[in-house]
Amino acid sequence: MCGIIGIQNNPEAATLAYMGLYAQQHRGQEGAGVVSSDGEKLHRHMGQGLVSDVFSNPDVFESLKGDSAIGHVRYSTTGDSDAENVGPLTFNMGSYYLSIAHNGNLVNIEEIRQQLQKDGALFQTSTDTEIIIHLLAREEGNTLAEKLEKTLQKIEGAYSLLLISPTEMIAARDPHGIRPFCLGKLQDTLVFSSETCALDLLGAEYVREVNPGEMIVANDDGFYSKMFTTPENPKHCIFEYIYFSRPDSKIFEESVDKMRRSFGKKLAREYPSESGDIVISVPDSSNTCALGYSSESGVKHEIGLIRNHYVGRTFIFPTQRLRDLSVRLKFNTVKGVMKDKEVVIIDDSIVRGTTLKKLAKLLRESGAKKVHVRISSPPVQFPCFYGMDFPTVEELAAGSRGVEEVRELVDADSLGYLSLDGTLESTNKEKENFCTACFSGDYPIRMKGENGKEISKVSSCS
Amino acid sequence: MCGIIGIQNNPEAATLAYMGLYAQQHRGQEGAGVVSSDGEKLHRHMGQGLVSDVFSNPDVFESLKGDSAIGHVRYSTTGDSDAENVGPLTFNMGSYYLSIAHNGNLVNIEEIRQQLQKDGALFQTSTDTEIIIHLLAREEGNTLAEKLEKTLQKIEGAYSLLLISPTEMIAARDPHGIRPFCLGKLQDTLVFSSETCALDLLGAEYVREVNPGEMIVANDDGFYSKMFTTPENPKHCIFEYIYFSRPDSKIFEESVDKMRRSFGKKLAREYPSESGDIVISVPDSSNTCALGYSSESGVKHEIGLIRNHYVGRTFIFPTQRLRDLSVRLKFNTVKGVMKDKEVVIIDDSIVRGTTLKKLAKLLRESGAKKVHVRISSPPVQFPCFYGMDFPTVEELAAGSRGVEEVRELVDADSLGYLSLDGTLESTNKEKENFCTACFSGDYPIRMKGENGKEISKVSSCS
Amino acid sequence: MCGIIGIQNNPEAATLAYMGLYAQQHRGQEGAGVVSSDGEKLHRHMGQGLVSDVFSNPDVFESLKGDSAIGHVRYSTTGDSDAENVGPLTFNMGSYYLSIAHNGNLVNIEEIRQQLQKDGALFQTSTDTEIIIHLLAREEGNTLAEKLEKTLQKIEGAYSLLLISPTEMIAARDPHGIRPFCLGKLQDTLVFSSETCALDLLGAEYVREVNPGEMIVANDDGFYSKMFTTPENPKHCIFEYIYFSRPDSKIFEESVDKMRRSFGKKLAREYPSESGDIVISVPDSSNTCALGYSSESGVKHEIGLIRNHYVGRTFIFPTQRLRDLSVRLKFNTVKGVMKDKEVVIIDDSIVRGTTLKKLAKLLRESGAKKVHVRISSPPVQFPCFYGMDFPTVEELAAGSRGVEEVRELVDADSLGYLSLDGTLESTNKEKENFCTACFSGDYPIRMKGENGKEISKVSSCS
Amino acid sequence: MCGIIGIQNNPEAATLAYMGLYAQQHRGQEGAGVVSSDGEKLHRHMGQGLVSDVFSNPDVFESLKGDSAIGHVRYSTTGDSDAENVGPLTFNMGSYYLSIAHNGNLVNIEEIRQQLQKDGALFQTSTDTEIIIHLLAREEGNTLAEKLEKTLQKIEGAYSLLLISPTEMIAARDPHGIRPFCLGKLQDTLVFSSETCALDLLGAEYVREVNPGEMIVANDDGFYSKMFTTPENPKHCIFEYIYFSRPDSKIFEESVDKMRRSFGKKLAREYPSESGDIVISVPDSSNTCALGYSSESGVKHEIGLIRNHYVGRTFIFPTQRLRDLSVRLKFNTVKGVMKDKEVVIIDDSIVRGTTLKKLAKLLRESGAKKVHVRISSPPVQFPCFYGMDFPTVEELAAGSRGVEEVRELVDADSLGYLSLDGTLESTNKEKENFCTACFSGDYPIRMKGENGKEISKVSSCS
Repeated sequence: MCGIIGIQNNPEAATLAYMGLYAQQHRGQEGAGVVSSDGEKLHRHMGQGLVSDVFSNPDVFESLKGDSAIGHVRYSTTGDSDAENVGPLTFNMGSYYLSIAHNGNLVNIEEIRQQLQKDGALFQTSTDTEIIIHLLAREEGNTLAEKLEKTLQKIEGAYSLLLISPTEMIAARDPHGIRPFCLGKLQDTLVFSSETCALDLLGAEYVREVNPGEMIVANDDGFYSKMFTTPENPKHCIFEYIYFSRPDSKIFEESVDKMRRSFGKKLAREYPSESGDIVISVPDSSNTCALGYSSESGVKHEIGLIRNHYVGRTFIFPTQRLRDLSVRLKFNTVKGVMKDKEVVIIDDSIVRGTTLKKLAKLLRESGAKKVHVRISSPPVQFPCFYGMDFPTVEELAAGSRGVEEVRELVDADSLGYLSLDGTLESTNKEKENFCTACFSGDYPIRMKGENGKEISKVSSCS
Repeated sequence: MCGIIGIQNNPEAATLAYMGLYAQQHRGQEGAGVVSSDGEKLHRHMGQGLVSDVFSNPDVFESLKGDSAIGHVRYSTTGDSDAENVGPLTFNMGSYYLSIAHNGNLVNIEEIRQQLQKDGALFQTSTDTEIIIHLLAREEGNTLAEKLEKTLQKIEGAYSLLLISPTEMIAARDPHGIRPFCLGKLQDTLVFSSETCALDLLGAEYVREVNPGEMIVANDDGFYSKMFTTPENPKHCIFEYIYFSRPDSKIFEESVDKMRRSFGKKLAREYPSESGDIVISVPDSSNTCALGYSSESGVKHEIGLIRNHYVGRTFIFPTQRLRDLSVRLKFNTVKGVMKDKEVVIIDDSIVRGTTLKKLAKLLRESGAKKVHVRISSPPVQFPCFYGMDFPTVEELAAGSRGVEEVRELVDADSLGYLSLDGTLESTNKEKENFCTACFSGDYPIRMKGENGKEISKVSSCS
Repeated sequence: MCGIIGIQNNPEAATLAYMGLYAQQHRGQEGAGVVSSDGEKLHRHMGQGLVSDVFSNPDVFESLKGDSAIGHVRYSTTGDSDAENVGPLTFNMGSYYLSIAHNGNLVNIEEIRQQLQKDGALFQTSTDTEIIIHLLAREEGNTLAEKLEKTLQKIEGAYSLLLISPTEMIAARDPHGIRPFCLGKLQDTLVFSSETCALDLLGAEYVREVNPGEMIVANDDGFYSKMFTTPENPKHCIFEYIYFSRPDSKIFEESVDKMRRSFGKKLAREYPSESGDIVISVPDSSNTCALGYSSESGVKHEIGLIRNHYVGRTFIFPTQRLRDLSVRLKFNTVKGVMKDKEVVIIDDSIVRGTTLKKLAKLLRESGAKKVHVRISSPPVQFPCFYGMDFPTVEELAAGSRGVEEVRELVDADSLGYLSLDGTLESTNKEKENFCTACFSGDYPIRMKGENGKEISKVSSCS
Repeated sequence: MCGIIGIQNNPEAATLAYMGLYAQQHRGQEGAGVVSSDGEKLHRHMGQGLVSDVFSNPDVFESLKGDSAIGHVRYSTTGDSDAENVGPLTFNMGSYYLSIAHNGNLVNIEEIRQQLQKDGALFQTSTDTEIIIHLLAREEGNTLAEKLEKTLQKIEGAYSLLLISPTEMIAARDPHGIRPFCLGKLQDTLVFSSETCALDLLGAEYVREVNPGEMIVANDDGFYSKMFTTPENPKHCIFEYIYFSRPDSKIFEESVDKMRRSFGKKLAREYPSESGDIVISVPDSSNTCALGYSSESGVKHEIGLIRNHYVGRTFIFPTQRLRDLSVRLKFNTVKGVMKDKEVVIIDDSIVRGTTLKKLAKLLRESGAKKVHVRISSPPVQFPCFYGMDFPTVEELAAGSRGVEEVRELVDADSLGYLSLDGTLESTNKEKENFCTACFSGDYPIRMKGENGKEISKVSSCS
């Protein structure tokens, strides 16, 4: 996953883009970058690590000149975390430079990549993002927008895109609107952002979503919108609500916090825990959900796990004993709260299950009589081809296990998952408006030459 | 403030010390260091920044040889954040090296420093910690412990100390027990730590506090305890309960979390908010307190502020507009929660009041009808000479303002501070067992040549 | 200018390549890099600065796996000294990676570059080297060698090339043999190198030159040679003898040292200095030349200038006075030697004339009665399009000045340049076998769209 | 060995000091530093590596404020090349800071160090330089000069010292004048320097030596000189002439170049080489010497060895074969010059003999029929306690070998050392004015508790 931000028409464009990345740091901690345009040239600063590390020297903003800028935070996928893949990627188009920030994942790239290579294209990175630019460079057209429009006919998958040239900024979103993408306004400044939490930070007003299938072309004279294709049925990623987006964001036109509270309430109705003494959350992603569960079930809400927010990258410890301790680097229990209680612990999802297993053990060591696990989403059983970084099916806790087996795996006294219907009914949209592939295996976009192995090679930012 | 850790008799001593610092990162983010002993030599690694930055390369643990180690995290005080002041400080004693980690602040150092300089002492740092070693180096005595015992007669103030020589580790705590300091055990390994959360992380068992006025001398053969002075009435820092320590720690023999919940309940009784619709906390330090307030008052607890935990060091933004935005780098509101509500916001204390003022504004912008501020401690009116890094009296919100004036300053609709009596009654100890100087001006240890200016120069880690 | 090295079939390939770069450090101080092949993958390490800086950590050789390697040192041209331009450049060819090291300068690249861009090529660097790979990627052919052969038909200029793929190494030299390039042998190991001094360092035996118009394709099974074109009349760069190559190298089949001695002798015959008391050289490039001049003229040879070899990059000093001193950072005089003498100072060439002017002043300040300048090459009057980094004609001392005017410029009492005929007669080859364009304006290869300005933009390594 | 520089009363003091270090880089490549004074405070910049590395960023000169500055380059001794030992060392004297740059080596420090430690002194470094400051800090006295004067009574050995306080600069030289130290003038600016080559670089005029036993105290009002002791017979280090100083310097009142020429001539008379065809030098230290030898003997001087001046720090190569090649990283032969010749190679001294042995082999491989080694100094047989970094007696080639055995060791056809008498007669001074301990074992200053092992531990800069 990644986060993107675009600022058009503001003398502080690069600084605002940087702030917008700060707000979206949760969408990618592997690297960060900003590219600004001064009307003639692009200026770029990027690096590996957190936004605060990459932009630790305020002098960089003096070199990031101009009134428009785009920014990108990149997710730490397993493997290819090369510096060269950190965005926004920048390309020499001959007479000018072009930079692109991309959130999502393309699905038909292998075929295109092979054709491009046959034609003599040389690749700088292993990202799918670069494919878009190679295609664009080969299109005929009078304007960048014209070329991009043609290019977008050829690619499939999930994408929220921002392109910046010396004279223009273009935003585009895939026809299914899989990843979030919104438009905001700050006086005369346009702001594009993955999530609205960035608008809030900038004091910008939310205008609307960038629509599925829409391109917005902005320059000094203003902006215009164009549908580059007939939008299909939206297929918003339900997992953005469940886990990925910030609770204070509004995505797909709904508050994430409100959605999580609904999940919590629904979960309480589907899987109450009559004997539970207290409800605790795995901070911070399940906090609201736990409130919802508590209010609906009447079981008292407590703060039982303390998260150490200073945990940056740690390394693999040399001995098993030290490795066993490492979950405690991140979480510790408040012992008095747990003592002799049946504890209902709410988590947003189970991916591998390893952390949850360690937490269950921790709760027992801290005195919990029983540990009831409640998950505010269905079992994750299938890979995501549109940008969510799940492990292989073999590594997914529920990949080949039933609920009872997962309960055993994490060593809980009881386990309840929110049902898929329950999840979807908690929203205000039609069920078919969401992509639920990771739960249901029902993929809205077919992969070309689709198979797990090929996909797992994709080192795209997504 | 600082945090310290000591590991005696463990083949992974340095790695465990590093983990113990991780757990105590909240006690100091300016720098971190570990010094280990292999029985003949000391080995040191330290640096500026977070523990994860300083120890980003696991190879350093290969060089941190030996079965005992001490560690130190240093607080970012204003001004002198020199690399040379990051601990543990290490000194060439002639025939061996000695290293020291110190949490606290000495009060009579100026006089001693001048005398030492007259005698030809050369200083490496501007810390008060170094004074201890200069005194020790000049004491007669057959053993390090003997010399330290004599040295401790000469210094006054707050200190929890760990010394490591090639053959020994010594822990010592000031006669008033101002800062927390505990002893734990992990099989045959002794663990000394500022807070118990480090014991938890290491899987160590809590044994007891290092007692006020006690020295514990440990080596390969075991350890012995000695009172180096008759302990006076304990004067534990009440602010450790209110704000500084982690909620999952037990300090001064009580759970911090439990104490904060008591503060919240008491506050609800002293300053209820009849018209309040919801109670929110300033995450994360006031979370438990807000729970206590909610349960006692019956006002519904909600999550209204989201904290961005990725905020590392940011810089001073160049324009006022950008500076105004900067509170949002750290906090954002969940708008739906606030909308048309009278919001009771719980914070642990008001120091300068600047953040609270910005938060109140943020709440209103997010739709709060009224903002009722409740503070789980009395007004901070006086400087701390024992290690808490408060600004000057002029800069303290309550330094020269009454409650009503502070309310105006932070622009709240109502403001209630927990009373000093209420604060102290919430504990299970006698009132006179706490230092309340920052609230009451009642200093348990007189400063020599005491005046604000001189003190503010102290660049000690505290 | 640059230097290149290739090692085929040796378990220490990367280390030997590094040593070969060390020997050729004088050919480029801007950056250095080595790419090795392990039969399946390429491994790369490069950086800005000297070889000793870039390879300061011996661990890099563990990652530079494999039995073959190429290396490159890059010259500090004015302007574009971007890290991305440091070689060997590496390209993703789709099914494998390819790396290239290039010494020389292409002349018809602008036209090709524009055509490539029209076809949608995206460039990573601003070098002419990259053009070669883009062309190659678009050629049809069963093997790399076949594609390269076709590519080389399309490019013009000076080049000594080394390509490495996972399975092959290919050396190629332009049809005029403008830059030096030789082949050596070390038991079963093939060594390709710009200069023979690298063979000496490696203890390798000199075999022969890579011939103009020749491609040598080497792999695990051995190597074969192929003429990719009918070689034209050689046009070796005479300036390699005069200044650029190391005196202990043999290039174009002759010892550089011997050639410089001939230049010195010839110069003594053309421009004796009857009143000269001593002959000194500008160390180290003119040392041998001064010996030749002395032995032919009978004027005593002395060491009058001491060069400080520790001068790395210095910066531009803030005041004129400090800037005036800066020649002395590099050179100082031995005062006693100069005192009351007429000094004949030998230099290899005059480019801008600024250093020589400062040296003449220095000699006078050290007591020289008269300063007679003798130059072992003709006046440099024209730009080089084949890789020598001369300034613009306006900046060349002799660009628009006669000999007498240059004498005035450098403030010498007399000035003698070796004649072009004298220069060429000193060699053992036919006159027409050398490129003398910088002296004569007679360019062996016509520039396409030839003009000084366009050329000066080329940021190629050359 | 080290080099020092002092600049008093110049608005560009720090920059001039930096330039003065550049000129003296040959005296120490381990580290470099400059401390300036602005009348109230000292400012310091130092680091490990070459002057150009340490001062690569010109911004540092903006922080090195003030009209006076001292600088120091530190020699790479075996072992303790800790960053903390790089000078100028700076000390907190209580009411002000003091910084010291030291060239030389003290001999009676162990006794003093032990006494100081008994008195409680804490050491920051392992240098002998620090001892001086500890002593000074304990002296009574109204002024710094007064305290220093008393301190200097207590130390013995070789020292050229520069101290800088916020208000004064003091230069002092040991009573035997073992290391060089001179005074220069640049209009109203005083310059102190180890060698005169620094004066030349700065355009400063040579005034005189800082005399043995003299202190010069300079401040804004001018300077005064004081003999702090009755100078003893000078004992100048003869090795400074032979090898260490730059040929363009004047030290001990004589030109180094002239002295080396005399050594060469004398050597030609003592050890002619009737069958020699050519004389070559080991560049650059023996260049002038070889000229002297050639002119006296009539054997033709040639340039046979080329030195690669780009060789920075290299690492230990992993295989013997690679290690054997490593001499060629530094030297290569001009093969044509050597071919079938009897070669007389001049070197300044034989320490371990390893390089010379490799060079002799190299010459033979390049075709030399015979290799006659001539050394312009006597056999080095004894350790130096005054700052020259010789290895242990066991490692010295001539430590326990006669001339014939050394000849065998280096594999020469003949070997001739300049005799001690010949060496001393080549100078214009009385024989007893030189320290010749490394040749004769005749130490002018007795070591306290003198033995090789203890001394070799001294990590002083010397």
